[in-house]
Amino acid sequence: MKPSSSFSISTLALIGPGLIGGSLAAALKAAGVVQCVVGVGRDANSLRKAQDLGLIDTQASVADAAAKADVIVLATPVRASAALFREIYPHLKPTTVITDVGSTKADVVSLAQELLKEHYPRFVPGHPIAGAEKTGPEAARDDLYQDRNIVLTPTPETDPIAQQLITQMWLHCGARVLLMEPAEHDEVLASVSHVPHFLSAVFMWQVASAENADLRLNLAGSGFRDFTRIAAGSSEVWRDIFLSNKQAVLNELREVREAFAQAEQALLEGDEESLYDFLERAALARRLWASRSGYHE
Amino acid sequence: MKPSSSFSISTLALIGPGLIGGSLAAALKAAGVVQCVVGVGRDANSLRKAQDLGLIDTQASVADAAAKADVIVLATPVRASAALFREIYPHLKPTTVITDVGSTKADVVSLAQELLKEHYPRFVPGHPIAGAEKTGPEAARDDLYQDRNIVLTPTPETDPIAQQLITQMWLHCGARVLLMEPAEHDEVLASVSHVPHFLSAVFMWQVASAENADLRLNLAGSGFRDFTRIAAGSSEVWRDIFLSNKQAVLNELREVREAFAQAEQALLEGDEESLYDFLERAALARRLWASRSGYHE
Repeated sequence: MKPSSSFSISTLALIGPGLIGGSLAAALKAAGVVQCVVGVGRDANSLRKAQDLGLIDTQASVADAAAKADVIVLATPVRASAALFREIYPHLKPTTVITDVGSTKADVVSLAQELLKEHYPRFVPGHPIAGAEKTGPEAARDDLYQDRNIVLTPTPETDPIAQQLITQMWLHCGARVLLMEPAEHDEVLASVSHVPHFLSAVFMWQVASAENADLRLNLAGSGFRDFTRIAAGSSEVWRDIFLSNKQAVLNELREVREAFAQAEQALLEGDEESLYDFLERAALARRLWASRSGYHE
Repeated sequence: MKPSSSFSISTLALIGPGLIGGSLAAALKAAGVVQCVVGVGRDANSLRKAQDLGLIDTQASVADAAAKADVIVLATPVRASAALFREIYPHLKPTTVITDVGSTKADVVSLAQELLKEHYPRFVPGHPIAGAEKTGPEAARDDLYQDRNIVLTPTPETDPIAQQLITQMWLHCGARVLLMEPAEHDEVLASVSHVPHFLSAVFMWQVASAENADLRLNLAGSGFRDFTRIAAGSSEVWRDIFLSNKQAVLNELREVREAFAQAEQALLEGDEESLYDFLERAALARRLWASRSGYHE
């Protein structure tokens, strides 16, 4: 799909102008396709920064922003969605389009259906696969979504015009838009995002709990640094992601546990061939991914 | 400890002039404390590159290099040690000092004791905690060891003068030198280096083996990139590390499996407090490490 030259948003309500939301605003402004971004947030300091950085043009309450907006973007942790759906509901116009950036989709879709009621068809669930290490408006960049994947998970009820509008919004940020079922999205993300975080945190916790943790950490090198980087993420955000996507994460953890047991058994038996085989399949898959993914190492 | 201004090596035999060995040569040359580096290796192409880059001054066979050298550095994968000890043994002078850079130490120490016989006291086992992502002489840098930790694992038989010489060699590369028992080194490295590699490879293998692997890998982001980076490493090198350090790795894997089971149980029960607690302890420990380690994120 190509970005359409006639696309434009008059008023965008951005709830949560952090890295993800702020980068969306920055990209839309850089592309010249948004007139006014109204920022909404609980943290006055963060809102001021977002305004100083030009990510948002003005600030408002949830109610006022929702009433004015043509498009509402929920760029908050998944767990805030229910309260926000309730807050915006009474103020929605019949044409307002709503989207989100949450890391899990099935739970958000079912909340939206319940709480947005007759407006539910104009909710287009989304998840940009980008960013994470840094947070806050000061980390926002207008090229964060350049060549990145955005997953939209519309349902049969979703209004095609609303879906088209949100698709165009992301295309104008330089992103690719993929469509998936909410449950499939959650399964895939459990595998490639939630499980790595879980394992990295389990490992970091285990090392830090050891009696000689200081000695261990003093000898940790660059492999350790890369492997544990994600474990530094927000505990609140990640707890909520795990709970929101509990069943899919548990299913994937079971698969990982089985692979772990197989590899451990090969080591226990000193089975050189099986050990080499599993390491080599992992190494080849990782190198292939690196050459295709477009992520800089 | 400070680098001594009177320190100098006349002839250094470098067996394996790749990233690790080549960076040592480059650092010693930059510090002006080595006269001649004789390169030894099985790969003619790699040796030629090392010479073109000025990392080595000349090339020789193992026997000739050993006969000429004041210091012999084994910068090869751990598994090559036994054959090399056998090859150099007949050519050693009574004053030749030998060291290595192997990732495991107990096995190398016991091989050296068996194969270097009367020369064993002048073997100073070493392990620089640095480098890894890139390999080969073209990746060598004279600042690779700047502010990095070098672990030496001398035993009661080790000649203090030999130990002092290898200590000075590393200090002149800008490194810090730590002393540990071989077994303690292997336990600590099992925890902070070998286990992360094992987990990263197990995970990468599991994802790549899934039916919908392509879809999964297409939605993998920067967290996945960091977590799996080490899984791209050499399968041969890592198989050998796991086998060389089998018992310590198995012991640590058991600890990790228990932490995994606890965290999984917390998720299964939807126990928000335990989930948050484990994630937060991991996050705090990782952030503290980042602020102290001197590794760039």
